[in-house]
Amino acid sequence: MIVSSDFMHRLAVAAAAETLPRFRCEGEVINKHAGGFDPVTEADRAAEQAIRALIRDEYPDHGIIGEEFGSEGEGRRHVWVIDPIDGTRAFISGLPLWGTLVGLLVDGKAVAGLMSQPFTGELYYATGEGAFYEGPGGARRLKTRSTAELSEATMCTTTPAMFDVPRRALYDRVEEAVRLPRYGTDCYAYAMVAAGHVDLVVECDLKPHDVAGLIPIIEQAGGVITTWQGTAAEAGGDIVAAANADLHERALEFLRA
Amino acid sequence: MIVSSDFMHRLAVAAAAETLPRFRCEGEVINKHAGGFDPVTEADRAAEQAIRALIRDEYPDHGIIGEEFGSEGEGRRHVWVIDPIDGTRAFISGLPLWGTLVGLLVDGKAVAGLMSQPFTGELYYATGEGAFYEGPGGARRLKTRSTAELSEATMCTTTPAMFDVPRRALYDRVEEAVRLPRYGTDCYAYAMVAAGHVDLVVECDLKPHDVAGLIPIIEQAGGVITTWQGTAAEAGGDIVAAANADLHERALEFLRA
Repeated sequence: MIVSSDFMHRLAVAAAAETLPRFRCEGEVINKHAGGFDPVTEADRAAEQAIRALIRDEYPDHGIIGEEFGSEGEGRRHVWVIDPIDGTRAFISGLPLWGTLVGLLVDGKAVAGLMSQPFTGELYYATGEGAFYEGPGGARRLKTRSTAELSEATMCTTTPAMFDVPRRALYDRVEEAVRLPRYGTDCYAYAMVAAGHVDLVVECDLKPHDVAGLIPIIEQAGGVITTWQGTAAEAGGDIVAAANADLHERALEFLRA
Repeated sequence: MIVSSDFMHRLAVAAAAETLPRFRCEGEVINKHAGGFDPVTEADRAAEQAIRALIRDEYPDHGIIGEEFGSEGEGRRHVWVIDPIDGTRAFISGLPLWGTLVGLLVDGKAVAGLMSQPFTGELYYATGEGAFYEGPGGARRLKTRSTAELSEATMCTTTPAMFDVPRRALYDRVEEAVRLPRYGTDCYAYAMVAAGHVDLVVECDLKPHDVAGLIPIIEQAGGVITTWQGTAAEAGGDIVAAANADLHERALEFLRA
């Protein structure tokens, strides 16, 4: 095991203590502090600081890259990558499909990570020795589906508006081929692939912190996540996550330019 | 008070006992009963039967209209309208934005109702004397936002693909005018309007059971919900729900054909 499940839980709890009290508080906050306060930014910054503090304490010789506070020691062999709130637009709309993402890179490869959704009480994480769920319904090992054909697949994307014209044309070919497309899902979609509830996620222009925490969960649950060209997902970019290698190959046939 | 909060809770609990155990069980079920079992239909039917039984027992002289089992006594003065699972596509994709909807019509006007999301543990309901939330974060009265301009509004719709070409053109005018559009929201979006997290929902071709439970929650939280022509929403059709009368009027200016 590369990272203990205990440490994963401590990261999720520390982040939740900063994000959850600020979720759905916008109305009240705006009334009290007209125009002068941004609960999302506060939640982002405070959660990233809490995560950084735990990592520095537990792994003082590891590097850290975060969305809000930049990088420290990013040339080290072990580097943690943090997105304190993935799905800011869901967060500010009261929708519980945002999540806190933390991934651990070893020699540039994402090997452990978590996605925490504290409002629903869900934690999806990968330790290096498997991917796991804890939350409503109990605890279990994550396992992707065996759906091999696009015509039987459920696909998620946050919004088709994210694609520019040439990539929209490629994306549309996949959407037309699948059984069911779903929108509005952010990081939650990748957890649904790992958990075997959906089969495919297709998105573009992701940052490294948007995917580092999710790659190990997808892979250790049996899925495949790469760029649209089939290269490593760790650098971000145009990303496709699939429940298995066959379905991934079917999607790449449409998405390769 | 037209309906007690106690009865609302009993309806939500009875429905959850049938829906929640079948949520996210698809993978296992398919392995055990290849091709022969549909957990969504089972959840729909069993939840509606449980709700009907409670209503018949509590209000034997009321009528009932349900998505799955049709109508009984629909000409009576009091008629309950049931959608056991609104957002079936979210349900089968593991996404917690589906809900159980129950509304009470008196002389054709929706005066009390509920939206229950048992995975997140949220209940939104209106008794005839106000609209209320219970769930994570505690219990509180629901109150819509005062956002008066589309340029400051967050708008939800389940998918822009629901609109045919002429209605898509009208919808697009609203989407272009708002600050933030969000997709994939089903009944959950209407609860977010009532709770003051978003400002607007625009959808089309809804059935009466898609809206009967939601109308009282929106209205008793301070919002306005009608057809795109400004007529009563109880019959379903093309629906717009807004946080307040000013914003509703701004949206209608775009949506009236």
